[in-house]
Amino acid sequence: MRKPGQVFLVGAGPGDLELLTLKALRMLKRAQAVVYDRLVSPEILALAPPLARRVPVGKAPKAHPVPQERINDILVELALDGLTVVRLKGGDPLVFGRGSEEVAALNAAGIPVEIAPGITAAQGVAAATGVPLTHRGLANGLRLVTGHCRDDQPLDLDWSGLADPDTTLVVYMGAANIAEIATRLIGQGMPESLPVLAVASGTTPRERRLVSRLDRIADEASAAQFFGPVLFVIGRVVSLYQSCPAEVLAMLATRPLREAVYA
Amino acid sequence: MRKPGQVFLVGAGPGDLELLTLKALRMLKRAQAVVYDRLVSPEILALAPPLARRVPVGKAPKAHPVPQERINDILVELALDGLTVVRLKGGDPLVFGRGSEEVAALNAAGIPVEIAPGITAAQGVAAATGVPLTHRGLANGLRLVTGHCRDDQPLDLDWSGLADPDTTLVVYMGAANIAEIATRLIGQGMPESLPVLAVASGTTPRERRLVSRLDRIADEASAAQFFGPVLFVIGRVVSLYQSCPAEVLAMLATRPLREAVYA
Repeated sequence: MRKPGQVFLVGAGPGDLELLTLKALRMLKRAQAVVYDRLVSPEILALAPPLARRVPVGKAPKAHPVPQERINDILVELALDGLTVVRLKGGDPLVFGRGSEEVAALNAAGIPVEIAPGITAAQGVAAATGVPLTHRGLANGLRLVTGHCRDDQPLDLDWSGLADPDTTLVVYMGAANIAEIATRLIGQGMPESLPVLAVASGTTPRERRLVSRLDRIADEASAAQFFGPVLFVIGRVVSLYQSCPAEVLAMLATRPLREAVYA
Repeated sequence: MRKPGQVFLVGAGPGDLELLTLKALRMLKRAQAVVYDRLVSPEILALAPPLARRVPVGKAPKAHPVPQERINDILVELALDGLTVVRLKGGDPLVFGRGSEEVAALNAAGIPVEIAPGITAAQGVAAATGVPLTHRGLANGLRLVTGHCRDDQPLDLDWSGLADPDTTLVVYMGAANIAEIATRLIGQGMPESLPVLAVASGTTPRERRLVSRLDRIADEASAAQFFGPVLFVIGRVVSLYQSCPAEVLAMLATRPLREAVYA
């Protein structure tokens, strides 16, 4: 039997090639096979050696995805073939990435795994927009949740715990459910005028931003017809958004914000 | 008057040089002055040009720190001298980094700022230990808080909201207050046997790890006499810790864990 290869589980970051870590780049350059998600940009994929096998396993919303179990099997098969495999995921593989399920499958097959963390979308969006995730007097902590439901089941979140005005709440994959999320948070006592930043395709050339407030974000985000994954940053830190004209900030408390969609 | 320079606000990541982003490295190589915190490793600082001015503004616990206002002034002064300044911080500058206070001061002085996010300690520790921050069935979200109090005031956290068994809780700078944190969480109904991973100097050659449970972590961490910043990961995901021998995992529910300190 051939000596098994190894798997590098690599976070590709939020989109911008420059947000790769040095470790991720080193691993990618050693790849003999790259198993990659839909959200990984072509520019990043191009960093792998030209002759490396490229295996897309992307999951498009509502499309027939490659099931997680099949992805696990693909990784095991490639590694058992003796290859150095890079499993490339958007963001950080251990934050909403299901990377740990792949690690478990690889461990069970006796295949060594090494992990490179990645800048997660919340961090990429914060750096790009200047909206901090914590800030003295505005947010003393940070909470990341996913607004995506497994198999279209209802959202099962700890609404009362989420409604903490001193914590910045970031919702990943929340475009489909932002109306329910906002309504529930208001129901738990969060102010209707709490500012919300929505960013689609953050840190990429296709990035688009919207500043709104909790009671209007669902309508505004829907009207904006975002394309690509949307991240919502909910909390008082959004009031620090620098590129936000003063008159828009003033409107946060008073008027609709349809005009506040930035290129 | 001389044309003002610019400031790059750069996350240095958790310690390992390889966890720098490509963007951080590019900015660092352009630095004419580097203003850096105590937690930035010498290896990373060495990546700045040899002739760049090096300005330490590190805050040692309980020592006389450089006040934040003075750091802001230093950045403004260096940039007004026309220099390209890198403000280098451990982790991510917008996650417990007070980076946004520096951005505000620089904006007020008319100095352009660009931000490079950094891998935050929770991500570095997750990748190094294999303990995921989310995992289906164990944690559907992630919460980051700081256990450090301003001016030694009492901890002011939303204890009831923090006590969510479906969320991984990561405590930064919590070594001094982990006893109170654990007691409060148990008081809010979190299980005494909930596993906790403590990691000191994560991702550096000095990294040390301890696996314990919520009702014993304070005693165990104290006995371990950790040196350097300690991160606590609290939640069911810690049960996935791979390097943890099965007999230690079994003990999580039953016995003290003093022996479970790993090199």
